[in-house]
Amino acid sequence: MNPIFADLPTTVFEVMSALARETGAVNLGQGFPDDPGPADVRAKAAEAVMEGWNQYPPMMGLPELRRAVARHYAGWQGLDLDPDTEVMVTSGATEALAGALMALIEPGDEVVLFEPMYDAYLPLVRRAGGVPRFVTLTPPHFRLTEEALTAAFSPRTKVVLLNNPLNPAATIVPDEDLDLLAGFCQRFDAVALCDEVWEHVVFDGRRHRPLMALPGMRERTVKVGSAGKIFSLTGWKVGFVMAAPGLMRGLAKAHQFLTFTTPPNLQAAVAYGLGKDDAYFEGMRADFARARDRFAGGLTDLGFSVLPSAGTYFLNLDIAPLGESDDVVFCERLVRRHGVAAIPVSAFYAHRPVRTVVRFCFAKRDETLDRALDRLRGLA
Amino acid sequence: MNPIFADLPTTVFEVMSALARETGAVNLGQGFPDDPGPADVRAKAAEAVMEGWNQYPPMMGLPELRRAVARHYAGWQGLDLDPDTEVMVTSGATEALAGALMALIEPGDEVVLFEPMYDAYLPLVRRAGGVPRFVTLTPPHFRLTEEALTAAFSPRTKVVLLNNPLNPAATIVPDEDLDLLAGFCQRFDAVALCDEVWEHVVFDGRRHRPLMALPGMRERTVKVGSAGKIFSLTGWKVGFVMAAPGLMRGLAKAHQFLTFTTPPNLQAAVAYGLGKDDAYFEGMRADFARARDRFAGGLTDLGFSVLPSAGTYFLNLDIAPLGESDDVVFCERLVRRHGVAAIPVSAFYAHRPVRTVVRFCFAKRDETLDRALDRLRGLA
Ligand SMILES: CSCCC(=O)C(=O)O
Ligand SMILES: CSCCC(=O)C(=O)O
Repeated sequence: MNPIFADLPTTVFEVMSALARETGAVNLGQGFPDDPGPADVRAKAAEAVMEGWNQYPPMMGLPELRRAVARHYAGWQGLDLDPDTEVMVTSGATEALAGALMALIEPGDEVVLFEPMYDAYLPLVRRAGGVPRFVTLTPPHFRLTEEALTAAFSPRTKVVLLNNPLNPAATIVPDEDLDLLAGFCQRFDAVALCDEVWEHVVFDGRRHRPLMALPGMRERTVKVGSAGKIFSLTGWKVGFVMAAPGLMRGLAKAHQFLTFTTPPNLQAAVAYGLGKDDAYFEGMRADFARARDRFAGGLTDLGFSVLPSAGTYFLNLDIAPLGESDDVVFCERLVRRHGVAAIPVSAFYAHRPVRTVVRFCFAKRDETLDRALDRLRGLA
Repeated sequence: MNPIFADLPTTVFEVMSALARETGAVNLGQGFPDDPGPADVRAKAAEAVMEGWNQYPPMMGLPELRRAVARHYAGWQGLDLDPDTEVMVTSGATEALAGALMALIEPGDEVVLFEPMYDAYLPLVRRAGGVPRFVTLTPPHFRLTEEALTAAFSPRTKVVLLNNPLNPAATIVPDEDLDLLAGFCQRFDAVALCDEVWEHVVFDGRRHRPLMALPGMRERTVKVGSAGKIFSLTGWKVGFVMAAPGLMRGLAKAHQFLTFTTPPNLQAAVAYGLGKDDAYFEGMRADFARARDRFAGGLTDLGFSVLPSAGTYFLNLDIAPLGESDDVVFCERLVRRHGVAAIPVSAFYAHRPVRTVVRFCFAKRDETLDRALDRLRGLA
């Protein structure tokens, strides 16, 4: 067995969801909504299953979905993508990231990673032969600094892997930090692999700024998106990759060998969904912001110290004021004794863990959030 | 870019399907049926999309599907699999193979490959850090020999990757050869990675014998199956992995990082489908055998030399009697001038190509096959 994968624990999301099922806890751990997702998009998928094509679609994805992706991002972020050579459909964002790392990295190449980070990043980088160089971001602002980037970049830097908006921090990387990073990518001739799956889920009138749109970044950015996050259908596993043709040719090879294709029925439904107007996406954001406010307000009323959430399905508690110094111990107690599953944020650190932050998913119905608040009463 | 992936051409299946679309050729290249697949299985998927769970399923797969897989293989092949620890659902067999190679191989490990082989095998082995050792199988019987295995195995052999039934040969590995291979796996302490996606598609009363069921192989075999092939729904990308718990733990980690999960709606439909009785699977096989006979008979009547097809969606032509010595040139001419897309079998060889065999997919409606036969008239 290759120890890079074999020695790792099962992902904390899976462990917590299983514990929640076993104990009957309210599951605010793994990030998924308890809403069934838009009925019209699901109806399109059902129709495609019954009347449409159920055999292999083209390896790069259904042409109609690739066109829909290009149109969606042109209208929304002003990106100018050629659907034939610059857009690919993958079996979720995880496959997109795995494939991109396998395609871009040669053994010994350095990869700049920002912790906290999604737990798949580091093993994928290592298994691809990459050498991780960590930049540690800390609460409450999780800012990138010139000093930290200078320490992490080197002439061997091949890839920078950035998640923006940032899970679990629930922050959006400020323009100033993005500009700084873009400068480093160009100075060191690095490819920016941008996991932007949360870009649609940003609140309070904020707008996500794709790194690809910054001057000098168009040709050196691989942008990853996710229909699961856009439409609150996390099980669908339909992701997108956007990149200039020269990069895309290599990425497509990795995709070809990792999954080859993605179910055409779900692709057809996502193509339909991406045609929705701004009002739909604004409504979705407003619904999530309302849920955030309900849950954050409830927690504050109970005496908890809530960190700001600018985007994603998540908000974080600072547990230091509770006299807690181990987020894992705290989360264990929370799920087993109090019936609420959450995620210890130290699980997102590989290097210099922050141990006093706990993540909750608020993308839930009011009654689910209220039930969790009820169970948390008296803990702060 | 990592040259292992980047330097490879687009898969021949994709190239031929694209050429067929462009030229209006009858597409007998890429292996997919032109039947829409069982309506009741598709109806279950549509129902699950509308009424069921569309968020992340458990990482190992829906419990109901894992139980259905265990029950299906128990009844059919006498395998005794624990659905909780020995069955995993993947996003197609390709992901299952990619993950298994990433999980099993450490850089420098040797991997025995049998050519002809599916074109993803070699790049995946190389990208995982494996050193390929080829066993070349040749028409018409594609037999394994003691001599060839002796030359390929060594104390550094970690994995043997066998496709049985064998695409593109359309052969089933004879019992004698399987026994021989099982002996080598045990002698050299190698893991057998068995791509058995075609096991349901065997003809003339033959039965597929899973390598896992041979004495001494239960603990050292990873068996890969495919719902896409079982139900003629190749676009669904629902695969299964079966292995002893010690192996499965490592395989699950790779799956966790490559795709994490597979759409729960399609999983639910496959779970339903696997409950079908023997008569259903016999009927499916009989339909494909009838298509094979119609196409093989037609080709023989036209004067072509047809190799036997014991299983898979495919049959092969020996083009040597036509005075042809380059299958790629022949296939180019076939698709562009005669309007029939097929696959040059040399594309499946990495080492010592056979250049006089061409593969046709007969899993098509009668009128599709007849149209192709019409276009092939006068060529032999
Ligand atoms: C793939 S499970 C993790 C889902 C998610 O994005 C999260 O909870 O952070
Ligand atoms: C994934 S495309 C190839 C399909 C297939 O199994 C074949 O044509 O051999």
